[in-house]
Amino acid sequence: MHIDIITVVPELLESPLSHSIMKRAQDKNLLTVQTHNLREWALNKYGQVDDYQFGGGAGMVMMCEPLANAIEHLQKKKTYDEIIYMSPDGERFNQRVANSLSLKDNLLIICGHYKGIDERIRQHFVTKEISIGDYVLSGGEIAASVVVDAIGRLLPGVLNDETSALTDSFQDNLLAPPVYTRPAEFRGWKVPEILLTGNPKLIEEWRFEQSLERTKARRPDLLEE
Amino acid sequence: MHIDIITVVPELLESPLSHSIMKRAQDKNLLTVQTHNLREWALNKYGQVDDYQFGGGAGMVMMCEPLANAIEHLQKKKTYDEIIYMSPDGERFNQRVANSLSLKDNLLIICGHYKGIDERIRQHFVTKEISIGDYVLSGGEIAASVVVDAIGRLLPGVLNDETSALTDSFQDNLLAPPVYTRPAEFRGWKVPEILLTGNPKLIEEWRFEQSLERTKARRPDLLEE
Repeated sequence: MHIDIITVVPELLESPLSHSIMKRAQDKNLLTVQTHNLREWALNKYGQVDDYQFGGGAGMVMMCEPLANAIEHLQKKKTYDEIIYMSPDGERFNQRVANSLSLKDNLLIICGHYKGIDERIRQHFVTKEISIGDYVLSGGEIAASVVVDAIGRLLPGVLNDETSALTDSFQDNLLAPPVYTRPAEFRGWKVPEILLTGNPKLIEEWRFEQSLERTKARRPDLLEE
Repeated sequence: MHIDIITVVPELLESPLSHSIMKRAQDKNLLTVQTHNLREWALNKYGQVDDYQFGGGAGMVMMCEPLANAIEHLQKKKTYDEIIYMSPDGERFNQRVANSLSLKDNLLIICGHYKGIDERIRQHFVTKEISIGDYVLSGGEIAASVVVDAIGRLLPGVLNDETSALTDSFQDNLLAPPVYTRPAEFRGWKVPEILLTGNPKLIEEWRFEQSLERTKARRPDLLEE
């Protein structure tokens, strides 16, 4: 899978995409991610890519022309399955969306900054708008890191043990059960005895019950889907 | 505000917290963020901080002792308003939670990695569990960047123009209206005429209608809250 990212602050994306599991995915050539500085398509020598919003009000808006030129430049080299704009009013990102995007070949992600991008780019170029949650961030860059990480770890071969992703929260609309490791007793706090029995059937039943209980208590909405 | 972050991959947090608005917040001393490598509290010279999970199954679990020691070390220097664990089964992070956390003085954020942290740490040390959304990430680090960014930009003085944050999506349970900037016509696509009238009252009405329409169309749930 290949992901291109258009941003005005490429530095923000450096470390989240170059360590840990994302590094492994790229080292194994299972995922390539390339960031593109929108200022390369700026309209003047000052690197201008934004301007005041029509109608007044606080916050700058990213202009049509640099974005259109950047998108069309990249489209000459790749056919994108989706051109994604990260925005708090987009479709809510969840594990289902992550699973579905992980099957694509080429994605282009546009990171807004400041007050967002000119609406005309959203109407005429963007094919999918994604929100990672109901909160506002300084820009789309951290949100894009979230999407790339969530998708990247699902690519076959990226995680060392693929069953690890399958038992994560949300893959079956249940939260994950509690996990414990050694020592069996720490400061008087003990691990549930059943986990020490070595009986896989009992342990699996206990984990399922715990998952179900935790989901009922914390996220009953997941059970209604 | 001060935020301490415990992590096994501090490199992941470098760039999201050192550029753009988070840099400005720290340069102005409105926010200080310090990452702490959990391996400093590792149990042996190999830097061990995780172990296999009791009961079997894929994925490593972060051990009690290094985490307890790290938390207690930091607690000697600071009294934390919240000890937060980033986890997909935590309380859903949203703008309301961001607003509320932005009023605190000292936060400690624990980033899980691998399969998560030993449940006993969650029970006995953590005071708040936060999920940034219904998807699974490689670790809590990118999620912690999301939380720090969302909170940081709300601190008075961080954004250049404070009204910019007040007109963002979610601050009034409405999505933001579309925004446009120059040119008024691009490839035949025109800016809505009302934005060019210079009539602040009409523009404000139009923006409110657009916000309401967009929220009804995309996120009717926000209007029911």
